[in-house]
Amino acid sequence: MKHGCDFPGPQGARKEECMLDLEKLYSTTARATRKSAIRELLKLADKPEVISFAGGWPSPDLFPVDTISDLMVKVLKERGRKVLHYSKAEGEVGLKEELIRLMAKDGVTAEAENILVLTGSQQGLDMLPKAFVDRGDVVFVETPTYVGAIQAFDNYGTHMVPVETDDNGMDAAALEKSIAEWKQRGQADRLKMVYLIPDFQNPSGITMTEERRRGVLEVAARHGLLVVDDAPYRDLRFEGEPVPSLYALDKKQSVISLYTFSKTLVPGLRVAWAVGPRQLIDKLTTLKQSVDLCSSALSQHVVADYLAGGCMERYLPMFNADYRHKRDIMLDAMDKYLPKLEGLKWTRPEGGLFIWVTLPEKMDAEKLFHAAVRENVAFVLGSAFHPSGGLKNCFRLNFSFAAPDRIHEGVSRLGRALTKFAQESA
Amino acid sequence: MKHGCDFPGPQGARKEECMLDLEKLYSTTARATRKSAIRELLKLADKPEVISFAGGWPSPDLFPVDTISDLMVKVLKERGRKVLHYSKAEGEVGLKEELIRLMAKDGVTAEAENILVLTGSQQGLDMLPKAFVDRGDVVFVETPTYVGAIQAFDNYGTHMVPVETDDNGMDAAALEKSIAEWKQRGQADRLKMVYLIPDFQNPSGITMTEERRRGVLEVAARHGLLVVDDAPYRDLRFEGEPVPSLYALDKKQSVISLYTFSKTLVPGLRVAWAVGPRQLIDKLTTLKQSVDLCSSALSQHVVADYLAGGCMERYLPMFNADYRHKRDIMLDAMDKYLPKLEGLKWTRPEGGLFIWVTLPEKMDAEKLFHAAVRENVAFVLGSAFHPSGGLKNCFRLNFSFAAPDRIHEGVSRLGRALTKFAQESA
Repeated sequence: MKHGCDFPGPQGARKEECMLDLEKLYSTTARATRKSAIRELLKLADKPEVISFAGGWPSPDLFPVDTISDLMVKVLKERGRKVLHYSKAEGEVGLKEELIRLMAKDGVTAEAENILVLTGSQQGLDMLPKAFVDRGDVVFVETPTYVGAIQAFDNYGTHMVPVETDDNGMDAAALEKSIAEWKQRGQADRLKMVYLIPDFQNPSGITMTEERRRGVLEVAARHGLLVVDDAPYRDLRFEGEPVPSLYALDKKQSVISLYTFSKTLVPGLRVAWAVGPRQLIDKLTTLKQSVDLCSSALSQHVVADYLAGGCMERYLPMFNADYRHKRDIMLDAMDKYLPKLEGLKWTRPEGGLFIWVTLPEKMDAEKLFHAAVRENVAFVLGSAFHPSGGLKNCFRLNFSFAAPDRIHEGVSRLGRALTKFAQESA
Repeated sequence: MKHGCDFPGPQGARKEECMLDLEKLYSTTARATRKSAIRELLKLADKPEVISFAGGWPSPDLFPVDTISDLMVKVLKERGRKVLHYSKAEGEVGLKEELIRLMAKDGVTAEAENILVLTGSQQGLDMLPKAFVDRGDVVFVETPTYVGAIQAFDNYGTHMVPVETDDNGMDAAALEKSIAEWKQRGQADRLKMVYLIPDFQNPSGITMTEERRRGVLEVAARHGLLVVDDAPYRDLRFEGEPVPSLYALDKKQSVISLYTFSKTLVPGLRVAWAVGPRQLIDKLTTLKQSVDLCSSALSQHVVADYLAGGCMERYLPMFNADYRHKRDIMLDAMDKYLPKLEGLKWTRPEGGLFIWVTLPEKMDAEKLFHAAVRENVAFVLGSAFHPSGGLKNCFRLNFSFAAPDRIHEGVSRLGRALTKFAQESA
């Protein structure tokens, strides 16, 4: 059944080049968007013999596949025609009720109107600049910050300003100083928000102290800026006392938090949510209608039933026990195999998925990356986590994905690579 | 477990107003975004006694719920840890292979690199202006055009230019004339694309003739414009010969087509796809990474297995038989119950979900809407389908969602409302 379609070549394939001048037609956004250099670099490491600490991935061994399968069957049997239909942009009522209960355990008080269900929290990172950023507007970020946020904010022409950040999180005084400088330059109207990953940060693994949280909230509120609390790892705490969430500490309704089930359940259901001031949630809901109409009702009902059935309490401790074990193996192996170099250090996170390594200042992590891949081990360069490519002597290690014996072996390879690299650089 | 969280009021709820000046912080996009007047209006009709012809919805009675449930179980059993993990931004290889086979039956030749899987085709309507539109850029559209496209394009500040469209589709000569006018005004660089829904158009139900398709393709290619072929209803043909798709007719690789399973299977899996020039698909894939990372691998595998198992051939004819029956009931009832008014006319689509009604020129469809709701029947105003709110004497009827007896009854109510309304207006 071919209709006037005479172009297929000998292989039946559409081999011609596009006759449009796409570069001319593209928007400023599309012209500026480049393939992630990191992704291209990591293709070098995409070989079975390479042990990769690069992906920010949960461990699929932990996925409660049978439970999800049973819930799928139950939901489809009970509510199949409803959950396979279009849902509402704001999300399913039943899921919101469960989210309210879930967040209450963490000191967060919210109502249904404070919640917008998202198709993964990356969708929130795309919608926030859509809602707040005109080209050139300013968003203050931690140093380092999440690569996916950099990409999403970049697409709206955001000026991302890195603020001094140490082992206690973003420095409120440094934020104050940076805001003051922008205001002195007459750019007050350009300042929009402060973007934070306060718990087991991606990529650093650092958790912001309560004092710093209060400090940053106070500075942001005083200057009328929205605070974005990106919290995908918050429930992945292995030890130590939880620090109150930014959302719970906030007294000015100036925080929007992004949560997801991608790390505490599975990424494949694509269920996440935002909680924030109802006027803002209302605005984002209107925007979501034209972004993807709605998130899958089926996925939302499966997650709601998972929560209602107490599965989170049953499975999440297994996630945390496994990740804690893997973190310990990685840290032990790092202590054992990484050479003792002046200035070499790494974080010791109390949860999450990542360890952040800082090399001696003049060492180039990209060169080390190539040496590491020759030893069949991979990581992500620190420069991916800086809006203008700084942090060239840093890199991120993920400890959640690889199996324990692979973590041990991978770190020993990394130790060999770094030892050789340090000798050659000396 | 509450941490320094002292604000909950007596009901434990977060009742305070947001202290931020959100209107000041919002982007140009967010400030311009208003709640859809149509959605607000339709809330008036959200009562059980109202028969609604408003939603653009498939009939949930047709959903192959058991088949989907069985496929979910099978996919989760065989590939659970893979499909519940993150997928690739471009989509799952297995689904792409099935899509290539599916499209080949319609004369479309494509390779994997021509395809980007989408989380619903609305995502494509959000990503296309992201990729091509700077504020003020021009997109030519049919009159009427799809409301969801208007909203998505509006969010990027698109100047949508309605082109004269009749029962044969967009008029290529009128497009040529409009392009020439913009070029004369020195706006050549502003012209980006032509957006079409050539098959059983939403909202008009009209199918573009082959001659018009060739004509518009020729004009667009000559002026270097991208053609967007939004084709959600293409496979919902009840009768008559298929017209070759724009993608199949295109010889210049200047067409991108959007397809979806929301109308031919179920909306709830949120699986759709774009097919187009590989350079463009590559660019959109990069953008999709920051929009939502990836579409659900689980949904993609279920759809792939559905296609591989021949389920589309089994179930789609049932969809079309049902919708044909409902269309006939609606058209018969319209012939019977709508008053004979000078200038009153409606389309008789060969497929799809919609009938488009044009009232006598001076009649206001919004006033009729209120009269209709008093008779407990609802529709969508024509003005929703025009970028600047024209077509005030038109409205859209959906025939796929309501049950046959409700369609008959609803049209008789509409007849009463219109008869009274015409008498009062006379």
